[in-house]
Amino acid sequence: MRLSQMLFYTLREDPAEAEIPSHKLLVRAGYIRRIGNGIYAYLPLMWRVLQKVSQIVREEMNATGAQECLLPQLQPAQLWQESGRWDTYTQAEGIMFALTDRQDRELGLGPTHEEVITTIAKETIRSYRQLPVHLYQIQTKFRDEIRPRFGLMRGREFIMKDGYSFHPDEASLAKTYQDMDGAYRNMLRRSGLQFQAVQADSGAIGGGVSQEFMVLADAGEDEVLYTPDGQYAANVEKALSLPPDKVDSPFQKYEKRATPDTETIDKVCKFLKCSPTNVVKNVLYQVVYDNGMTVLVLVSIRGDQDVNEVKLYNGLTGLAPQYNAKTILALEVPAAGLQQVWATRPLPLGYMAPDLGDDYISPAKNVAPRFLRIVDRTAIALENFVTGANETGYHVVGANWGKEFQLPQHQMDVRKAKAGDRATHDPAQTLQTARGIEVGHIFQLGTKYSQAMGATFTTEQGEELPLYMGCYGVGVSRLAQAAVEQSYDKDGIIWPVAIAPYHAIICVPNIGDAQQVEVAEKLYTQLNAAGVETLLDDRNERAGVKFKDADLIGIPFRIVTGRSLSSGKVEIVQRINHAAEEVAIEEVVPFLKERINTALQA
Amino acid sequence: MRLSQMLFYTLREDPAEAEIPSHKLLVRAGYIRRIGNGIYAYLPLMWRVLQKVSQIVREEMNATGAQECLLPQLQPAQLWQESGRWDTYTQAEGIMFALTDRQDRELGLGPTHEEVITTIAKETIRSYRQLPVHLYQIQTKFRDEIRPRFGLMRGREFIMKDGYSFHPDEASLAKTYQDMDGAYRNMLRRSGLQFQAVQADSGAIGGGVSQEFMVLADAGEDEVLYTPDGQYAANVEKALSLPPDKVDSPFQKYEKRATPDTETIDKVCKFLKCSPTNVVKNVLYQVVYDNGMTVLVLVSIRGDQDVNEVKLYNGLTGLAPQYNAKTILALEVPAAGLQQVWATRPLPLGYMAPDLGDDYISPAKNVAPRFLRIVDRTAIALENFVTGANETGYHVVGANWGKEFQLPQHQMDVRKAKAGDRATHDPAQTLQTARGIEVGHIFQLGTKYSQAMGATFTTEQGEELPLYMGCYGVGVSRLAQAAVEQSYDKDGIIWPVAIAPYHAIICVPNIGDAQQVEVAEKLYTQLNAAGVETLLDDRNERAGVKFKDADLIGIPFRIVTGRSLSSGKVEIVQRINHAAEEVAIEEVVPFLKERINTALQA
Repeated sequence: MRLSQMLFYTLREDPAEAEIPSHKLLVRAGYIRRIGNGIYAYLPLMWRVLQKVSQIVREEMNATGAQECLLPQLQPAQLWQESGRWDTYTQAEGIMFALTDRQDRELGLGPTHEEVITTIAKETIRSYRQLPVHLYQIQTKFRDEIRPRFGLMRGREFIMKDGYSFHPDEASLAKTYQDMDGAYRNMLRRSGLQFQAVQADSGAIGGGVSQEFMVLADAGEDEVLYTPDGQYAANVEKALSLPPDKVDSPFQKYEKRATPDTETIDKVCKFLKCSPTNVVKNVLYQVVYDNGMTVLVLVSIRGDQDVNEVKLYNGLTGLAPQYNAKTILALEVPAAGLQQVWATRPLPLGYMAPDLGDDYISPAKNVAPRFLRIVDRTAIALENFVTGANETGYHVVGANWGKEFQLPQHQMDVRKAKAGDRATHDPAQTLQTARGIEVGHIFQLGTKYSQAMGATFTTEQGEELPLYMGCYGVGVSRLAQAAVEQSYDKDGIIWPVAIAPYHAIICVPNIGDAQQVEVAEKLYTQLNAAGVETLLDDRNERAGVKFKDADLIGIPFRIVTGRSLSSGKVEIVQRINHAAEEVAIEEVVPFLKERINTALQA
Repeated sequence: MRLSQMLFYTLREDPAEAEIPSHKLLVRAGYIRRIGNGIYAYLPLMWRVLQKVSQIVREEMNATGAQECLLPQLQPAQLWQESGRWDTYTQAEGIMFALTDRQDRELGLGPTHEEVITTIAKETIRSYRQLPVHLYQIQTKFRDEIRPRFGLMRGREFIMKDGYSFHPDEASLAKTYQDMDGAYRNMLRRSGLQFQAVQADSGAIGGGVSQEFMVLADAGEDEVLYTPDGQYAANVEKALSLPPDKVDSPFQKYEKRATPDTETIDKVCKFLKCSPTNVVKNVLYQVVYDNGMTVLVLVSIRGDQDVNEVKLYNGLTGLAPQYNAKTILALEVPAAGLQQVWATRPLPLGYMAPDLGDDYISPAKNVAPRFLRIVDRTAIALENFVTGANETGYHVVGANWGKEFQLPQHQMDVRKAKAGDRATHDPAQTLQTARGIEVGHIFQLGTKYSQAMGATFTTEQGEELPLYMGCYGVGVSRLAQAAVEQSYDKDGIIWPVAIAPYHAIICVPNIGDAQQVEVAEKLYTQLNAAGVETLLDDRNERAGVKFKDADLIGIPFRIVTGRSLSSGKVEIVQRINHAAEEVAIEEVVPFLKERINTALQA
C-alpha cells in the first residue's frame, strides 16, 4: 500500500483520554480512534494487526480439531433466564447491555455465549457418537464496563475468540482443556509475547478449574503471584500461600482494656505492644442476594491478613441457598450511609468483636436478622488473642475461641495471599508479584450449563447424561494492544514481526529524485510479489518526517532509498534496535525474506 | 474435515418457520439454526460459505484500492443527532435497535455507518492530498425488522460489507462509483450468481444516484422492471415508464351525475361507460413529520394508474421545510379510525374530488389546516375528465383543470410504473417484470453527511469545502442464501463451486470394508494437501444415508469408494446433474483440480 493512497495520519500529541503507553501510541500512530466511551474504530493498520492475530488463533484452534462458526450477538433474555444468569449479568455486574425490541421482547448483547451454544448442543447433539465436539468463533463482544479505560484493554466493544467444547465425560473434557492449554501457549508465543499461565478464579463463567494467560506488563490490571522455581503461578484472586508464622501472644489473661483511638490494627498493636498476628480483626460486609435479601457478614481474620473478596464472594455464593437465593447481586463493605439503612444504632467500628450483637440489625423484611459470621483459617488458630470489645475505645486481650468467644459457624479460607508469603508446594519458595494483562482464560465448566438448560446425550449404554463442557477465550483486540504495551520505545511501537501490520516500509527521502523513486517503486513491487508485505512512503514530505512516522507506527524493517544508491545499495534499518545495514538492491528481497522467516520461527 | 468429528446433522422435516426453499434447505442441511426471531447461528458449514463470499468481496474491494477496517457496532446517539437521522432510524422506521447504558447514555446498534465514518473523516482528513480515500468493513449489522423472515434474507442480525469513499469533487466520486459498479459485478459473477444491476431509490441513506444489484429469484422481495433490449432496469420503487395512451373522453359537457355504488374506478367506468384513463382518481394520504405535524395529502392521479409511495415519500420529504420539519416519521393511507381523529365529518370516500374542502379538517395544533394537494403528471394531461363530486353516490363528468377545478399546486411524478408500460428510452420496448433479491446497493451520497456533520477539507487553492462521499453495501449473508435460492433441486442445495463450503466429499459406503477405508483416507489426505477442500464421511451409516446427506448439503463433487475399487477406480458424481464418472484412483486429484479450476473461471 502507498501511504499517499491510505487514510494515513499520525498525531504529535498524546490523546487526553490515554493513561498507558500502548493506548497513547495506538492513537497517535493512527491505529485506533475513539468513537465513544470505551468504543474504538480499528483503522486499516490496526485491522491488519487484528487479522494477523486472528489468523494465528484460527490456525492453532483448527489444529486441535475445533471448528469455526459464528453465533449471534443478540441473545434472547429467555436463554439467560434458563441458565439463571440474566439477573447477575444485567443487574449485578451490570456488564451485559440489555435492550427491548419493537415487539417488547428483551435481548442481551452477548458478552459471552455459553447459553447460545448450550441451546444448540441441546438441540443437535443426541449421541455419544457425536462427541467430543468443539466450536469456536472470533467475534465482537460487548460489556457495559463501569469504567472503560486503557483503550482496547478494557473497552465496551472488543474482539474475542471464544470456543466451547462438549464431552461425554470428565476425562474427555480434561483432554481438550489440555489441548487448549497447548494451543494458547502456541498462540501467544507465535504472536511474540512474554506470558505466564496462572491458576485463576472462574468468576461468573463458573466451573471448577480455570487458567488465565497473562501478558506480563507494568500496566496490567491483574496481580500475579508466582514462585521463582516456576512451579506455581496464580492470579491473586485465586492464589494460595502459607501465612507468615504467628507470634506467641503476650497476653495470658482475658481482660478488657481501654484502648483509646485505636481503630486500626496498627494503632492497637502499637498501643498494646503486640503483633498483628495476635489480633482477630472483624470486617463487616454487606451482601445482596438475587432475591433481594440483604445479609450482613462479619468476617474474623488474623490482624495481619486481608480478606480476598473473590474468595469471600465464592463462599457467600455457596451459602446463597440458605437464604433461598441463587446468586449475588452485590457485595461490599457498607459505607456509613448504607449502615444507617439497617443498623439500630451506630456500630463500634474499629472495635467490633466476633460476637457483635444481632440486635444491631433492625428488623426488616429484606434484611437477614442475624449476622452471617465467618472465620478465616488464620484466625481459628489464634490463642489468647486481642479483638474488639464491641465498645468504642476498648479491646479485649487474652481471648480464646470456645471460652470468651464462640467459634463462628462458617470456617473458610478467605485470606488474600500476597508477595512475600511462603508457597504451599514448598515453604522455601517465596511468592513474587508481577502485573499481568489477562489475554486468555480457559475453563472446565463441567455440567453447570448443560444441567441448567437440559442439554443431554445418550451414552453407548443408552443412559441419558448431561454434557460435560469446557470454554476457552482469547481477547484478540486486547492481545494486540498488550503486544504494544510489552514492546515500544520512546520513538513508538515495535511490533513483533508476526503481528506487524506490514513487514517493511520503503521511505523515499526525496520524491523529487527520479532514481530514488524508481528504485523504491521497483522494490515495492518485488517485495509485495515475494510476500514481504511492504508499505511505500511516497508522500511529499521531508525524510525526517518519514523516518519518524515509520518509527512511530512500528514497522519492523525500514528501507531507505537514499545516499547509498550511488553504490547500488539501500539502507535497511531494524525498528527494534535501529541497527542499519547497507544491502545491495538485488539482495533486498532475499535479505528481508530471511530476516522475516527467522523472526517468525523464533 | 471428518464428519465423525464435526457437529454434523441433517433434518428430515422442513422447519416450521421457513417459507422459501433456501431457508428450508439451510436449516435442514445444518448450515444455520434459529436462536431467536430473525436471529441465526451460522454453523461451521455456513461459516465456511460466508468466509468464501467475504474473501471474494475483500479481493474485489482491495483491487480498487479500498482499505479494510472495522468500525464500532455501538454508536453514540449524538452522532446520529448530528446527521439528523436519530429520530428517523429509531422512531420512524424503528429499524435501529437503541439502548441506554449504565451511565444513562443512549446508543444505537449500527445498521449502517455513515455517521461514524464521517466523524472519522472530519477528524483525520485535512487536505485534498489525502483524497480520494475509501474504507470498508465486513461486519455484523443490526435492524429491528417489523417482520423478520426468510432466514438470512431479512434477519435482524446479518453480515454486510459496507464501504465509504471520500472525494474532493463529484468527478472523483463518480469514478469510484464506477469502480464499485465493476467490483460488484465481479463479486456476484465470481460467486456464481445470476444478477441484474438496476436503478434504485436511495431511501433513508440518501444522495442522488444509486444502483442496486439484484439476484433474480422468484422468492425475491423486490420487483424489477426491465426492457428486453438490456438498456433499462430499475427497482419498481424507482422505475420510470410511459403511461398507456389515454382514450378520448366521451364527455363534452360538465355535469354532475348520480353514480350509485361506484366507489371504485372499475365500477364508475362501467357505470359511466368510459375508460379509466378518463378519470381523475383522488387518493388520501396522511403524513406525520418529525416535528409531530400531521398533514393530510390528496393525490390526484389518472384512474388507471397507482401511486408509487416511495416517490410520494420523496416528494413529501422535499416539502417538509414548508411545515418546519426535516423528515417523515410515517406515511400511510389513513384507515377509518385515523380519519376520525381529524375529520369534522365522514369523508365522501370513493367520491372525493381534487377540491375536497379543507373544512373536513378540524382545527388542531398538530394538524395542518389545509389539504396538501398533489397532482400526478398523468392527471394533468386530462380533459373533460370524470372525478368525484365530493358527495357519496355522485361523480362529475366533462370536468377540466382551470375551469371546474383548480390545478393542484404541487405537480409531481408519483406514478407507479408497471410491467407492460412502454419504456421511456424507446417506446417500442415494453417493461418486463422479474423478482429480485437485493444483495448490493451503491450510492453517490454527495455532501449530505459531510455538510450536516461539518466534514471538510482544504483544496489546493486553500478553500475549505465539504467532502463528497459515496457508500457501497453488499449483504454477505443474504448473498449466500440467495445463491441457494437460485440453485437447488429436490435433493438439496447445489452450491456454486466458488462459495461451496467444501469442494468434494468422500463417501465410504461401508466403513467395515478395509480397502474402502484405506482408499478414502489416502484420497482425503492427498486432496486436502492439493488444495481440494474435502470432507470425509467416515460415519458408521448406510451408503444411502451418506449419499442423501451429501446431496442435501450440496457439495459439488462426491467421491464414492465403492464397487469400482475392484478396477482401481472410484466413482465421482457431480452434484449439479448427478452425472457419474469412474476415475482411476491416481487420477482423482488432477481430475478434480481441473474441474474446480474450470468452474472457478467460468
